[in-house]
Amino acid sequence: MASTAVELIKDLSTPAFVVDLDIVKRNASVMLARFQKLGVQLRPHMKTHKTLECADIMTGGSRRCIVVSTLAEASFFADHGYDDILYAYPLPFDKVERCAELSEKLSLFHVLVDSSLALQELKRRPLKQGKAWHVWMKLDCNNGRAGVPHAEPAALQLAQEISETEGVELTGIYAHCGNSYGSKGEEQIKAVAQETTTFTLQFVEKLKAVGVKGPKSSIGSTPSCSHPVPDMAMLSEVHPGNYIFYDVQQSLIGSCRLEDVAVRVLTRVIGHYPHKNQLLVDCGWTALSHDGGGRLPTGYAVIEGHPDIKLVSMTQEHGRVEPVSGKLDFSQFPLGSMLSLMPYHACATAVMHPVYYVHSKGKIVGTWKPTRGW
Amino acid sequence: MASTAVELIKDLSTPAFVVDLDIVKRNASVMLARFQKLGVQLRPHMKTHKTLECADIMTGGSRRCIVVSTLAEASFFADHGYDDILYAYPLPFDKVERCAELSEKLSLFHVLVDSSLALQELKRRPLKQGKAWHVWMKLDCNNGRAGVPHAEPAALQLAQEISETEGVELTGIYAHCGNSYGSKGEEQIKAVAQETTTFTLQFVEKLKAVGVKGPKSSIGSTPSCSHPVPDMAMLSEVHPGNYIFYDVQQSLIGSCRLEDVAVRVLTRVIGHYPHKNQLLVDCGWTALSHDGGGRLPTGYAVIEGHPDIKLVSMTQEHGRVEPVSGKLDFSQFPLGSMLSLMPYHACATAVMHPVYYVHSKGKIVGTWKPTRGW
Repeated sequence: MASTAVELIKDLSTPAFVVDLDIVKRNASVMLARFQKLGVQLRPHMKTHKTLECADIMTGGSRRCIVVSTLAEASFFADHGYDDILYAYPLPFDKVERCAELSEKLSLFHVLVDSSLALQELKRRPLKQGKAWHVWMKLDCNNGRAGVPHAEPAALQLAQEISETEGVELTGIYAHCGNSYGSKGEEQIKAVAQETTTFTLQFVEKLKAVGVKGPKSSIGSTPSCSHPVPDMAMLSEVHPGNYIFYDVQQSLIGSCRLEDVAVRVLTRVIGHYPHKNQLLVDCGWTALSHDGGGRLPTGYAVIEGHPDIKLVSMTQEHGRVEPVSGKLDFSQFPLGSMLSLMPYHACATAVMHPVYYVHSKGKIVGTWKPTRGW
Repeated sequence: MASTAVELIKDLSTPAFVVDLDIVKRNASVMLARFQKLGVQLRPHMKTHKTLECADIMTGGSRRCIVVSTLAEASFFADHGYDDILYAYPLPFDKVERCAELSEKLSLFHVLVDSSLALQELKRRPLKQGKAWHVWMKLDCNNGRAGVPHAEPAALQLAQEISETEGVELTGIYAHCGNSYGSKGEEQIKAVAQETTTFTLQFVEKLKAVGVKGPKSSIGSTPSCSHPVPDMAMLSEVHPGNYIFYDVQQSLIGSCRLEDVAVRVLTRVIGHYPHKNQLLVDCGWTALSHDGGGRLPTGYAVIEGHPDIKLVSMTQEHGRVEPVSGKLDFSQFPLGSMLSLMPYHACATAVMHPVYYVHSKGKIVGTWKPTRGW
């Protein structure tokens, strides 16, 4: 890559995914300090960035206590000295053996289940050296994706079943408040955070009442962990992830300000088409993703410093930019000039890039290579 | 990866992108034979797959005469013995030096321009050893993305300017009929193919009339090259790409039958949620992409053998499946069972995968690793 010798982000070959190290460090410190103050363990999620360097920043250098969404991530971090890894994904039956190997290798590897059948799969593969499977039960507190609905008797039954199974330890109760993504503003976010916290803590109390003591409790999502409610101090852990980069979506939800967004896709103007009142840029969906569906007033991204133009559509390697209204002043955007796109969804954009260019005040200070695959 | 020792695609760790080698070979042969019969050079596009192995199949082993959409692809294929490579992308000014190096290294490296300013950039970097830049002019024949509109005097002026510039050779006129993607059925596809062909050939005639002789002509898109019109025999080249895999989108346009679609994303059922009438599968947008926007009657994909279920939504690593109507019969889809998704857009899905599993009749015969980046 010609880009590796480049010193300033303005000279990078485009499209390029750039990460502002100062903002990343600030986002990490704020979240670490927030939950330290509340006395709650922060277990940061790796899914947004999938890099060692960023994981080190998020864990404050401990290399302990993380959550991942793929086994590829789990293995990647385990291979690089990480431990206490929670694979927060409904246990896929084709991956039990790999999970067992990680459980045997690490001091703490946690899996997640939301069905009795998954528990049977764990029983069929007892761990060596008398180790126990560390199991979190996924509780659905109105998020509506995975998990056992918190109010259903089946939830309590499954938790009891896990706790009674030989070779298996019910380590915790895990809820994802992804429904916080439907919020607008701090008040609505806090309402979801409160609801998820209440249901999770109530569930742990109900477990105690039936004699199951000890399981931890964890909830998480970037909106709820950006605006925690006081009751969250009673949780054992939280597990947000996107906050390390933030994005336009999070700013619209109210999790952050636009100034907290740490990532951009840099692109250059490669075409002037006055007959269409349109610019062409070298950023297609391979560099930005289609996430968000182009529904922002400025289309698929916010174009930094140019609230009056819109990324209206993309093909594989091309993006079309038009004025939000009126006629485009092409002289403002010479061929070869650079535009800086704030992604709608940082997780979706990061995943499109084999390398991230990390900068401090525009000067490149490193490159990060994410792990990929499953 | 645990998957590499796997012999049958049914045993792959999911999600996995699988390529049916027999269909790929058939799609390649049909396209090669079709244009050999018409006496037109096929210059296959590499953007869909970005792998050496598939390129070898598409070029019939010649390793010559390909088109790419990124410089990373150009360098990747050049490094592996490919030559006569057309970088069919409006020349990005930050990549002129890398283009010059490829032009000096290869016997034939072609660039594309659609503005006088781009031509000036080439003039500022004369090639060594008296070599000339091979330049294709991009003509917009109502596709509406890049290129100079075919009927505007500016088009003729630019072509003349290229042909008169020292150190530069006007190698050809290049039109992409991406507007064929709006077609439904063979008749509409052929109408677009005819229009693009007519405008391109007329333009070459106009050039001849002003004394510019010799430039080649090339049009392309998978729909138009799947249903060529007789006049396309008068072109020098065509440059389709997606046809090697095809996809649901192409079947809806009418370029192919569903039986011609060579790729799938394999996924497994990881959750049963009767209270939501919903299955969870281990395929999110990281494995399938959001392309198509979920507007198929079956959502984001066609689920092979199950026309009655729908991939309604995805998050990063999860997909939600519901019946198209009525109540889901969960016994048909046990936890751990595999579903096979036909992607809406093969290019967008392939780009999400660091490795493709290649099979013949379900037996894995190899893995292909695509190049990525720009």
